[in-house]
Amino acid sequence: MDIINGGVAAAKGYKAAGIYAGIKKKRKDMALVYSTVPAKAAGTFTTNVVKAAPVKWDMKIIKERKTIQAVVLNSGIANACTGALGEENNYKMAKAVADSLGISANEVLTASTGVIGRQLPIDVIAEGADLLVKALESDAGGGLMAAEAIMTTDTYSKESAVSLLIGGKTVTIGGMAKGSGMIHPNMATLLGVITTDIAISKALLQEAISAVVKDSFNMISIDRDTSTNDSLIILANGLAGNTEITEKNEDYYNFCKALNMVATELARKIAADGEGATKLFETVVVGAKNKEDAVILSKSIITSNLVKTAVYGNDANWGRILCAMGYSGVDFDSDQVDLYIESMDGRIKLVENGMATDYSEETATKILSAKEVRAIADVKMGDGKATAWGCDLTYDYVKINADYRS
Amino acid sequence: MDIINGGVAAAKGYKAAGIYAGIKKKRKDMALVYSTVPAKAAGTFTTNVVKAAPVKWDMKIIKERKTIQAVVLNSGIANACTGALGEENNYKMAKAVADSLGISANEVLTASTGVIGRQLPIDVIAEGADLLVKALESDAGGGLMAAEAIMTTDTYSKESAVSLLIGGKTVTIGGMAKGSGMIHPNMATLLGVITTDIAISKALLQEAISAVVKDSFNMISIDRDTSTNDSLIILANGLAGNTEITEKNEDYYNFCKALNMVATELARKIAADGEGATKLFETVVVGAKNKEDAVILSKSIITSNLVKTAVYGNDANWGRILCAMGYSGVDFDSDQVDLYIESMDGRIKLVENGMATDYSEETATKILSAKEVRAIADVKMGDGKATAWGCDLTYDYVKINADYRS
Repeated sequence: MDIINGGVAAAKGYKAAGIYAGIKKKRKDMALVYSTVPAKAAGTFTTNVVKAAPVKWDMKIIKERKTIQAVVLNSGIANACTGALGEENNYKMAKAVADSLGISANEVLTASTGVIGRQLPIDVIAEGADLLVKALESDAGGGLMAAEAIMTTDTYSKESAVSLLIGGKTVTIGGMAKGSGMIHPNMATLLGVITTDIAISKALLQEAISAVVKDSFNMISIDRDTSTNDSLIILANGLAGNTEITEKNEDYYNFCKALNMVATELARKIAADGEGATKLFETVVVGAKNKEDAVILSKSIITSNLVKTAVYGNDANWGRILCAMGYSGVDFDSDQVDLYIESMDGRIKLVENGMATDYSEETATKILSAKEVRAIADVKMGDGKATAWGCDLTYDYVKINADYRS
Repeated sequence: MDIINGGVAAAKGYKAAGIYAGIKKKRKDMALVYSTVPAKAAGTFTTNVVKAAPVKWDMKIIKERKTIQAVVLNSGIANACTGALGEENNYKMAKAVADSLGISANEVLTASTGVIGRQLPIDVIAEGADLLVKALESDAGGGLMAAEAIMTTDTYSKESAVSLLIGGKTVTIGGMAKGSGMIHPNMATLLGVITTDIAISKALLQEAISAVVKDSFNMISIDRDTSTNDSLIILANGLAGNTEITEKNEDYYNFCKALNMVATELARKIAADGEGATKLFETVVVGAKNKEDAVILSKSIITSNLVKTAVYGNDANWGRILCAMGYSGVDFDSDQVDLYIESMDGRIKLVENGMATDYSEETATKILSAKEVRAIADVKMGDGKATAWGCDLTYDYVKINADYRS
């Protein structure tokens, strides 16, 4: 498997663009991903009962249609809690892009991110759609432009792409995603698009993305707030020329492994760029009764405000980690737990059988001062294992969110 | 019903004291509540599977004994995750107080709050026990001294007391409590003691406190972290001279009403003094399908970091409130929701049937700038109603918790 460049436009037959339309004050705010041939589409969407207009649209289109050809995305306004007018505006956004591309509106998926409750400025969007389609014609760099155009409070764009051989053919998988607040995905994360040229049945494409999401996007949390707009869309246009995957054979599992790599890299980048974050905080739970317990325990740790502020302060306040495990709802014996922290600056055991070791606070602080920090908890009850990703809770998180709209 | 002074020492036959023993650097760190006659005891304790030594002790004593006579509390060290030595030290703390009072150790309940994972300095505690018992002899003000001695990051002490007539006798209920981090009670809150001179059976005392906790302490959250040490203890020594309550008659319900008033006042004070908080944030959900749904919805709103930072910023970012309701797991129709905010500076409707009204942002900001702010959501599905209390999320929360131990 090779790591390559190009993001969402890396695979054969895909183009992408990102432009400034005028929804936000200055930065790029509209993106387009286009497959030159019809592509199968699958996706996972927010479980929030308050669903944004584009989420409702995409769920319907993916269910009803065999293929689609484009995804248009905007940042700045989420088009959630906008009623019937919001759904009409969402349709107009799809239609404007479809008209410029010469396809039909129901071949265009949509995604929006930004403030909840405001209506899309539909004239601005319509002009933006034309600009986007024109921008597709330019040379390389479209993937990056698109990844930049879906950013809100993100401080950098998130892309990932790999290629691998499947059935003797080079298959490419590339993606983009954005964070970085209201991130506690439940079935998907706030705006991710992955494209691939693999030939695969629609049913298996959906199954693959659903499985991969569980270990990647669904294992991150910035602030425990599950957004109204979470959408992860995957397109597969078959241009790699491999024999179409229609059963769970070796090709399928190789594809899943590569897809997992792309999804995990995007998810980690979102976690590391959480609003106000100074570092990526990874939690590994091993020895849980089963995987479900490990998932709950690891997510309980990365979502605790008290753990997150301690990580920010480089303070090995391990009692907060045990406390967060304790209220997770999972049954375990706290007198059995071992706890380690590690980073590129070393690794130490903080807790053995539920009590502090005689570790050095100085060493612990040094380890926690790295840009990527890992806590490992062994609950010694079985084989369950899970990894979750989050970030520290900082002054800047408060600053960003105390006046997000102003 | 009359609101009176005296806190935990207000009811007949109770004395209290608070002193500096030397667990913390400077501030008072040990408290004692003493009933001159044996008192029935009931309590509710943390549901965290990681339970501090004093929690285990109290649960055992309350279950096994008919009466107790004292509660000793310390701040600075939580005596959680401290193994067998922690349980031994907890016993020694109870024994030291018992010896000074001339009673037996299993007539003394214990409670601890502070850093997890450190052992109690048992020599300091033993000396403190003697000082406490001596301090009991001094005149009024013991209730306040005790309330001050259990503070950790609290910025003020929390007391409440009322008196009322039951069966022609004056019955008094007084209490103290402390916050102000790791507060997301589940069956109790971090250290509360309520004393009353009412005559009541032990079974009904437990039933009353369990019922009242649901609507008071269990409806507050500072940071969604359920502590390892949550303990709410109630003592009833019968000195009011009323006919003992042994069934759910009018006297019982009058007692519950008064107890609820004391518990709610203490709970609100904890919420308003949440770590770093600048204001009390109250959420009322009405029109839910049933009470359970209303409880979940109101707690989902007050625990959302994004809602809490918006409240801090005086920003009527109502989309975050609907979003938090949406991911709570409760089924409702977001297109039906009405949302209001109010404070002493006025009241406005922000959302009608799921969409923004044409409210003035200026007025909304003025309302949100008050010291006590209320959001009211009507989901129009039934008669379910609940009130929850929390606070805003501020720079100071991060500051306090990034270097709590240093």
